[in-house]
Amino acid sequence: MRAPAVHAGIDLGGTSIHAAAVQAGTILAEAGCKTATGREPEAVVEQIAGLVDELRQAVGDATPLEGVCVGAPGGVDPVAGIVHHAPNLGWSDFRLADALTARTKLPVVVENDVTLGAIGEHVYGAGRGTRHLVALFVGTGVGGALVVNGAPLRGFRGGAGEVGHLVAIPGGRVCGCGRSGCFEAYASRTAMEAMIRERMAEGRKSVVPKIMKKKGKSRMSSSVFEAALDRRDPLMTEVLAEAQSHLATLVANLVNTVDPEMVVFGGGLVARLGARFVDPIARQARPAFLIQEGAERIRIVPAELGDHSATIGAAVVAVQRLGG
Amino acid sequence: MRAPAVHAGIDLGGTSIHAAAVQAGTILAEAGCKTATGREPEAVVEQIAGLVDELRQAVGDATPLEGVCVGAPGGVDPVAGIVHHAPNLGWSDFRLADALTARTKLPVVVENDVTLGAIGEHVYGAGRGTRHLVALFVGTGVGGALVVNGAPLRGFRGGAGEVGHLVAIPGGRVCGCGRSGCFEAYASRTAMEAMIRERMAEGRKSVVPKIMKKKGKSRMSSSVFEAALDRRDPLMTEVLAEAQSHLATLVANLVNTVDPEMVVFGGGLVARLGARFVDPIARQARPAFLIQEGAERIRIVPAELGDHSATIGAAVVAVQRLGG
Repeated sequence: MRAPAVHAGIDLGGTSIHAAAVQAGTILAEAGCKTATGREPEAVVEQIAGLVDELRQAVGDATPLEGVCVGAPGGVDPVAGIVHHAPNLGWSDFRLADALTARTKLPVVVENDVTLGAIGEHVYGAGRGTRHLVALFVGTGVGGALVVNGAPLRGFRGGAGEVGHLVAIPGGRVCGCGRSGCFEAYASRTAMEAMIRERMAEGRKSVVPKIMKKKGKSRMSSSVFEAALDRRDPLMTEVLAEAQSHLATLVANLVNTVDPEMVVFGGGLVARLGARFVDPIARQARPAFLIQEGAERIRIVPAELGDHSATIGAAVVAVQRLGG
Repeated sequence: MRAPAVHAGIDLGGTSIHAAAVQAGTILAEAGCKTATGREPEAVVEQIAGLVDELRQAVGDATPLEGVCVGAPGGVDPVAGIVHHAPNLGWSDFRLADALTARTKLPVVVENDVTLGAIGEHVYGAGRGTRHLVALFVGTGVGGALVVNGAPLRGFRGGAGEVGHLVAIPGGRVCGCGRSGCFEAYASRTAMEAMIRERMAEGRKSVVPKIMKKKGKSRMSSSVFEAALDRRDPLMTEVLAEAQSHLATLVANLVNTVDPEMVVFGGGLVARLGARFVDPIARQARPAFLIQEGAERIRIVPAELGDHSATIGAAVVAVQRLGG
């Protein structure tokens, strides 16, 4: 029996690109970079190809990379390898798989990044062995993916799992999607940052600007959130609690819809805050499950693979589609 | 090849019981009665057995009933034939299948009534040939059921599809489930009746009481709703429009979660109002689908089997579990 194949899993984001050489769920090597300013498809393909080269050299000739799976932030055609619509990259209908194969001489498959995160957690992370799973990723947006009967649910048009756009408050805050009152407009990292800025503009005090300056950050990164919480900043604590309260309603909505065994939270902020992020959500969500019998058996937990959910999930999909 | 088996499908509600002898999706005979006052399990079993006898006589000896499937309004154990929890009947942990088999000498299976309604519409009604389907039944409550990859989704604890208890308005109207702001608290027939009564108590005028008196009804039945709408009663029109607006949000929430090919609306009120009930919901829901590509291919329609969704679905389940 030969050793399991090694694939490159790529987590392509609007801000940064993470790459990992993965063998049977284990990361052999990592590489990464900031996404090219402008995010032109050709420049980004060049960046990904460079990361794949780095991984190749890191794992050596004894275990060659057999293929690549890229997780893109948006709608994809997984069969044709096309990124249809990725607002955070400004891409539409880009034939990513063809372009990257031309450059790397490797077979390339493409999938939605959140779907890959859910698959990573389902196969190798917190959700191992679950039959029905909901994954929620909190970051620039609130992304979601569902695993039903052991397989990712895509839906009729590939539109399943867009649960950040369920309605939290009818006619509420304007969301990045252009609609009003979506959960994403209250509970994404971006939304929390906006709410903190708005309340400071109204005269509220916060240590956040000082922390950002000290860390040399222009945005409220996960590390800024954590530092402000560690210093018990009232405004940060309040905004996080509001986001958690909305996420509790979202969790209850999803439990009352699909009744999963597990709701797993991922993304950079969750990787950093862990139980401090998830436990208050779980506490508030549970009383809102319509069926209380057996409710304690539904686990609400942080992702186990941290920042690697999507790259490891990408390698799982590479094995499924390319063999290995 | 022998003819397809004939089964008795029973739709057991808190108000009435409908029964039908069904062969391959076709109703051969019907029977029904008001649910016994008090709803004691033994009395209700006697009633169902009586209806089964009526059906037997109606279909004759040439096509004997081969089994019974009862749809109960609540949580069931379909394998053991137990009704665990049926608030509208006041039942808990009643071994319905055993009791009814003892009385009818027929094999009996039990299922949730809303699940049966969805199965009926999926196999023989509006949803024929769909892979992913959401069914919503508007009545005493707002019940839901999901078909995913061609099969009903039960979830981890049998709790999937309880979408009437997604949150419409955080902290809003008190729901029958004891929580606040559920869609059911705004959009069930019961909720609409309550809102009309509240607004009349505040001094609003309506033709509804006059219509109820004329029809000899103590509750606002579907026929009362229809008569008031036909007479363009402003209060009835307003309350229905509010319910439809909430149901549009619920539909969008479900499309953004599971991306079905079809959302089918059933229940007595929908059977009566048809497109007048469903079309305004569809119009308001569509702009709130996150993914607009292909959105026009998602059908939002009234049930085709009318009041028979659940009895026909019951016969489908009888065939699946008992053979035929």
